Amino acid sequence: MIFLTRKAEFSSAHYYWVEDWTEEENSRVFGRCANRNGHGHNYTVEVTVAGEVDPISGFVVDLKQLKDILEHEVISVYDHRHLNLEVPEFRTSIPTTENIAIAIWRRLDGKIPNAKLHRVRVYEMPDLFADFYGEQG
Amino acid sequence: MIFLTRKAEFSSAHYYWVEDWTEEENSRVFGRCANRNGHGHNYTVEVTVAGEVDPISGFVVDLKQLKDILEHEVISVYDHRHLNLEVPEFRTSIPTTENIAIAIWRRLDGKIPNAKLHRVRVYEMPDLFADFYGEQG
Amino acid sequence: MIFLTRKAEFSSAHYYWVEDWTEEENSRVFGRCANRNGHGHNYTVEVTVAGEVDPISGFVVDLKQLKDILEHEVISVYDHRHLNLEVPEFRTSIPTTENIAIAIWRRLDGKIPNAKLHRVRVYEMPDLFADFYGEQG
Amino acid sequence: MIFLTRKAEFSSAHYYWVEDWTEEENSRVFGRCANRNGHGHNYTVEVTVAGEVDPISGFVVDLKQLKDILEHEVISVYDHRHLNLEVPEFRTSIPTTENIAIAIWRRLDGKIPNAKLHRVRVYEMPDLFADFYGEQG
Amino acid sequence: MIFLTRKAEFSSAHYYWVEDWTEEENSRVFGRCANRNGHGHNYTVEVTVAGEVDPISGFVVDLKQLKDILEHEVISVYDHRHLNLEVPEFRTSIPTTENIAIAIWRRLDGKIPNAKLHRVRVYEMPDLFADFYGEQG
Amino acid sequence: MIFLTRKAEFSSAHYYWVEDWTEEENSRVFGRCANRNGHGHNYTVEVTVAGEVDPISGFVVDLKQLKDILEHEVISVYDHRHLNLEVPEFRTSIPTTENIAIAIWRRLDGKIPNAKLHRVRVYEMPDLFADFYGEQG
Repeated sequence: MIFLTRKAEFSSAHYYWVEDWTEEENSRVFGRCANRNGHGHNYTVEVTVAGEVDPISGFVVDLKQLKDILEHEVISVYDHRHLNLEVPEFRTSIPTTENIAIAIWRRLDGKIPNAKLHRVRVYEMPDLFADFYGEQG
Repeated sequence: MIFLTRKAEFSSAHYYWVEDWTEEENSRVFGRCANRNGHGHNYTVEVTVAGEVDPISGFVVDLKQLKDILEHEVISVYDHRHLNLEVPEFRTSIPTTENIAIAIWRRLDGKIPNAKLHRVRVYEMPDLFADFYGEQG
Repeated sequence: MIFLTRKAEFSSAHYYWVEDWTEEENSRVFGRCANRNGHGHNYTVEVTVAGEVDPISGFVVDLKQLKDILEHEVISVYDHRHLNLEVPEFRTSIPTTENIAIAIWRRLDGKIPNAKLHRVRVYEMPDLFADFYGEQG
Repeated sequence: MIFLTRKAEFSSAHYYWVEDWTEEENSRVFGRCANRNGHGHNYTVEVTVAGEVDPISGFVVDLKQLKDILEHEVISVYDHRHLNLEVPEFRTSIPTTENIAIAIWRRLDGKIPNAKLHRVRVYEMPDLFADFYGEQG
Repeated sequence: MIFLTRKAEFSSAHYYWVEDWTEEENSRVFGRCANRNGHGHNYTVEVTVAGEVDPISGFVVDLKQLKDILEHEVISVYDHRHLNLEVPEFRTSIPTTENIAIAIWRRLDGKIPNAKLHRVRVYEMPDLFADFYGEQG
Repeated sequence: MIFLTRKAEFSSAHYYWVEDWTEEENSRVFGRCANRNGHGHNYTVEVTVAGEVDPISGFVVDLKQLKDILEHEVISVYDHRHLNLEVPEFRTSIPTTENIAIAIWRRLDGKIPNAKLHRVRVYEMPDLFADFYGEQG
């Protein structure tokens, strides 16, 4: 068993706001993130897959295929987008770092041939990141 | 003469759009940046000042003062904001990396005691940055 | 279950010295770190907490609260200090990277509301770090 | 139990090629990596060991000893070398990131006094890395 | 006048060897770089252009165009190649960091519409880089 | 003319204190840096030399020689030392980032064969650095 990790980046806008809360409540919990004009980040996502190394190719997963799946399922949907306004899963949940990691897991899980998705890590800033290992994690 | 540089960060949303252009023209020149829902970045700004080292304190500039000026003039205005919608100078100019560097120069120039503003560098992403050395630069 | 990590930094002086050892013994085991005038580092600490994501806020932990606890319990005590001379736990143990990670764990464990401390990572240099997962780890 | 990680770097050439495959097959699976003139990378290896902290020295492992073992067993063999042509284990297996991590594990396992090898991580590029935790991993 | 810099990466093999020198002489001057099996690096190139900001678009240069020129003139020629064996300019000069910076300058100079090439910086490793400002530099 | 830069690191303790000032004055100007127990940093120094590229070797300067000079003149004197207590030039000047850059310039200037010292940059932290170009700079 070996673990292979590939990083990718996307630049998106977002804000934190709970419709059922007052402005004061949103501001108290979310601080400056509650500004509904939005702000944004250069996000980094690390996708880790686990599997056996193929004894001929030396690969646990076809790197080009992994890159294409990540591009198609995540980057093309999130990059240069407003997460709250344009990405379906964030119409009903707030795009916190935690929820973005879970959402990317759900977008990728089961789609990678010959390997198991092991971890999704999302950096919102270099000093803040979330790790998700799946529903059983 | 010595040069001292301090970095700071701000996270903002923006988009690129020229009102006088058609949607096709905006899209051709600005690509995915023309999405008017906005996207965002973790910007890094490097402010370089030049001056003589004080023979007693060993400082070219009071670091705390420099940090406060940068915080007051730039970070508090740009951070967690939508640049196009909330920052006055980007109502009439597009918040490209180049224009952000020029705008920060204008916000800081003449405000730093005992030292001359030498350069403003702005990173939009780790692989893209602009440098401005002032109007005579 | 999701894991959230926040980084912070502190700049401290330290040295390595065992009182019961001779100068030769200290020098043989600790090399240049045995210089009792002290030297120093820009330390980076990563604090990882584990918990369930709140279905409303999307947070596993209140980020501002986490930052305040880390500031109050660790950074305000370690930053711009001489670890051997000014931090109580290093009067009786040597401030190695390993011992600093354990000490930070003990300072934080049980203090974070609604989440479990999962890991403390301390970087002394970019090429050297220690991870502690608690006494049962 | 605590985990200590030390990083080191080596710069090597390599290519990906399976002798039993046609040029087309090699090119399809390995893309530009199949160029037999070779290309190269600045590899980073992170070696993590696990053990108890010595109550006197505060060390889980003698850092100088760990550095020497890593230098002797890995860096002196891989650095400024062509992995396919000059490193024995890559005469019979392809030097993918996965296989390099496994090979470094085998070179280090059992050689570190008083501590257990826990993980070998190899970065080929900042955005691609493999983790190996041993045969039972 | 403003300066815009874009980074790109390429992974290549190379070695240092002067045909007119003996093996001893090559080894004395070039050390481990004289190994003719080759070794390699993840190179980073920073291309800086200078010009006036377009008052409408806010650009000093069309970023997509700059990226395409860099890709076509440099990356597609150098990446995943053996510099000594496959890149014409290094048949008659040694691919040192200095010479690579000069060669990239010559490949790009005069090809960037509406802006002047100002500087080419090449990193061979994070701790070693060369800057070239042109023949008059 | 080409510019070559090499980075190196040293870990040192220091404090800021002017003997002729009161404790209040030191504290007001230097803040937490005035703690005379000392604190410390992982400093990074970048040394840039300028010269012509040798048409045979492709080098502007012998890299091994440059590394040795930097090691002998700076790193061996500053690393794992208390700058105020153990480095002669900081008995009469405060080891601010500015003064360290000037001191390293004076230690290196005139000692590098065939090339001119162009710039010394010193990082105290990743977000603070000083550049010195010599007395005429």
